[in-house]
Amino acid sequence: MRAIVLSIGRELVSGLRPEAHAAAVARALGAVGLSVLRHETLDDDVRAVAAALRRAAEEADVVVATGGLGPTLDDGTREALAEAMGVPLQEHPAAEAHLEAWARARRKILSASNRRQAMLPHGAEVLANPIGTAVGIAARVGRARVFCLPGVPAEMHRMLAEEVVPAIRRLVVGEQGTRAAPRSIVRTIRTFGLAESIVGERLADLMAPDRRPRIGTTVGAGIIDVHIYAFVAPEAVEADAAEVRRRLGDAVFGEGEERLEEVVAAILARKKRTLAVAESCTGGLVAAKLVNVPGISAYLEEAVVAYSDASKVRSVGVLECLIREHGAVSEAVARAMAEGIRRRTGADIGLGLTGIAGPGGGTPEKPVGTVWFALADAAGTPATREVFAGDRAFIRQRAANHALNLLRVRLMG
Amino acid sequence: MRAIVLSIGRELVSGLRPEAHAAAVARALGAVGLSVLRHETLDDDVRAVAAALRRAAEEADVVVATGGLGPTLDDGTREALAEAMGVPLQEHPAAEAHLEAWARARRKILSASNRRQAMLPHGAEVLANPIGTAVGIAARVGRARVFCLPGVPAEMHRMLAEEVVPAIRRLVVGEQGTRAAPRSIVRTIRTFGLAESIVGERLADLMAPDRRPRIGTTVGAGIIDVHIYAFVAPEAVEADAAEVRRRLGDAVFGEGEERLEEVVAAILARKKRTLAVAESCTGGLVAAKLVNVPGISAYLEEAVVAYSDASKVRSVGVLECLIREHGAVSEAVARAMAEGIRRRTGADIGLGLTGIAGPGGGTPEKPVGTVWFALADAAGTPATREVFAGDRAFIRQRAANHALNLLRVRLMG
Repeated sequence: MRAIVLSIGRELVSGLRPEAHAAAVARALGAVGLSVLRHETLDDDVRAVAAALRRAAEEADVVVATGGLGPTLDDGTREALAEAMGVPLQEHPAAEAHLEAWARARRKILSASNRRQAMLPHGAEVLANPIGTAVGIAARVGRARVFCLPGVPAEMHRMLAEEVVPAIRRLVVGEQGTRAAPRSIVRTIRTFGLAESIVGERLADLMAPDRRPRIGTTVGAGIIDVHIYAFVAPEAVEADAAEVRRRLGDAVFGEGEERLEEVVAAILARKKRTLAVAESCTGGLVAAKLVNVPGISAYLEEAVVAYSDASKVRSVGVLECLIREHGAVSEAVARAMAEGIRRRTGADIGLGLTGIAGPGGGTPEKPVGTVWFALADAAGTPATREVFAGDRAFIRQRAANHALNLLRVRLMG
Repeated sequence: MRAIVLSIGRELVSGLRPEAHAAAVARALGAVGLSVLRHETLDDDVRAVAAALRRAAEEADVVVATGGLGPTLDDGTREALAEAMGVPLQEHPAAEAHLEAWARARRKILSASNRRQAMLPHGAEVLANPIGTAVGIAARVGRARVFCLPGVPAEMHRMLAEEVVPAIRRLVVGEQGTRAAPRSIVRTIRTFGLAESIVGERLADLMAPDRRPRIGTTVGAGIIDVHIYAFVAPEAVEADAAEVRRRLGDAVFGEGEERLEEVVAAILARKKRTLAVAESCTGGLVAAKLVNVPGISAYLEEAVVAYSDASKVRSVGVLECLIREHGAVSEAVARAMAEGIRRRTGADIGLGLTGIAGPGGGTPEKPVGTVWFALADAAGTPATREVFAGDRAFIRQRAANHALNLLRVRLMG
């Protein structure tokens, strides 16, 4: 079965915002065995969207569209779908009930523009949206199944996983009788600590373009992902994954969507260790990543953003003379931050991080991107220095990931 | 003149990597006055790309394609373009000279696969690539101008700016005589504090689909952006922007790419006020956003992630009896956090934030998404409660933006 992915929004087609859903939709469709022909990003013009829906429905069995389901008049996906189906819009009782329940739960009154969201093409079905006003729509255009999802990321992802993927799985199984649907397999092995060129050299033969399964890498803020890509050959993927893991060793921290902070949280939980964080140039990023892991409160004692010199002294007990003598970005201060936050909170491990994210503040000896990391535990307080190249946001992300990886390695050791 | 943007690559259509060029190409085309009809992301299959090129050339005056110009056999854009033009591939002297010069400068020997990059469709022209092996291609398919650029980001951006944009500018000027090329204008007004449906109602007449300039909205973590799109009518955009600002009042916090945290930092700087933050469920997000503003260290005294009950007591001096009596997520604790961090740091304003980001921890009286905010300053410590709907990451982003907006409003008052 073939699929086409549509993304609707004037802000997308004009380049004002990058399109951000098509890749996730394509991966989800690939995972249940569909072959994705193309993505299209469209203006939210009713006639253009209707024409694209009709054309996509002629070429594909499944069309998934995101965006254009909001309450404002520039959201025209409902109208476009009705036009493509050749039917009128009408009030849909289930959509209306959803809107009313949503408003009641929030003690709000539905506005007239909210009520537009209950107007669906005649014959269309509602896809539930437990976290927003815009219901999704399932319909047929010609012989193709069309699914329209809201553009709000959390709503889109949830509806894709809970409504669209199960519906497509039923279609695929129905078409093929009781046989399991063929699956495209993408396995991703996540690593931190090796440069991309080193990963490339260690995997050179596996990454040759004509080799199957295909293997490729992508990079983001220091994390190198190795993707193994195949159709219906789970054993070959399995064997490649084992080989990649063997060659990259301890740099491998997880698979798939697993994040460094989740790995750190899991080790803290397994080893029943507690953590406290004192961070400077990352300004709360290390804490923010950790706190995004549910249940972390049992292991993260506290995090302090000791951004100014005064707060390094006041909150983590860094001696003023250390800052005067070595500067705020120094091994001595990073160690004092790690030891200070550990002492004050009674945590098993203290992380101290101080650096220069730029754009100003660099010197020849301490260029922008210089970051000192220290980890204090019962055994001592080793410190390391890194110099990252990039803009302020990149240096901060890179430093936060580096700190999480240091924690991972220390906790495993 | 109308344009279509194509992005070619199996890793893109499968969703393994997000497509990353179309938005930049669309902005560049819009800036020289072209109207972008759509973007398509395509598999690197020669027949599919040739069909897409032909279809695009029927609908648009300009087609810009990125990707598929590399040396390996899975790069088929040259073949696809030749097929769409109905001409054979042949060695192009300028492309060959470029490849040889490139190899000579690097003391390398051209491989057979490199030499494939000198095979261009008969009648096509070379677009210079000063930083890579893949030359770009300019050609005609039917009456449309087609530009094919390499997918390597640095090469694509440079060729777009130095070759494609000037060529299109010449086309536009040629079409319109000596008049300057028209420019598309996008103006974005950023708001926080009004629901999207309320914004939609206040602007309903301005957002009518047939009205010009067109006005549309986008939403992200509570921020509603109002975009005004127009061709060659700066006065109309100016008038609409003033009208939008008038109707949305204090909810407007900025324009363009301006962020809430930048606005807060600017007001702190202008009024010479200092801030300290004690946050719980947002786990450092408020601090992380603020610290991304260069120069914030002069105004942000300190931020504490008081995530556990113990750290609320230890670091911000919340009385244990308050937590016992009211719960950690309560008005009393939010106020105690705001007052405690203000007292401890001596900042002018203390922000306290405590909530339930989920997925666990909700109760009927305090559902997941409940967040209490308090702002302590010399005048007192007002507190407010919000209930946000969404997943953990969304609730945290939403709450962090809400806190920044409360700061903005208080600082302006």
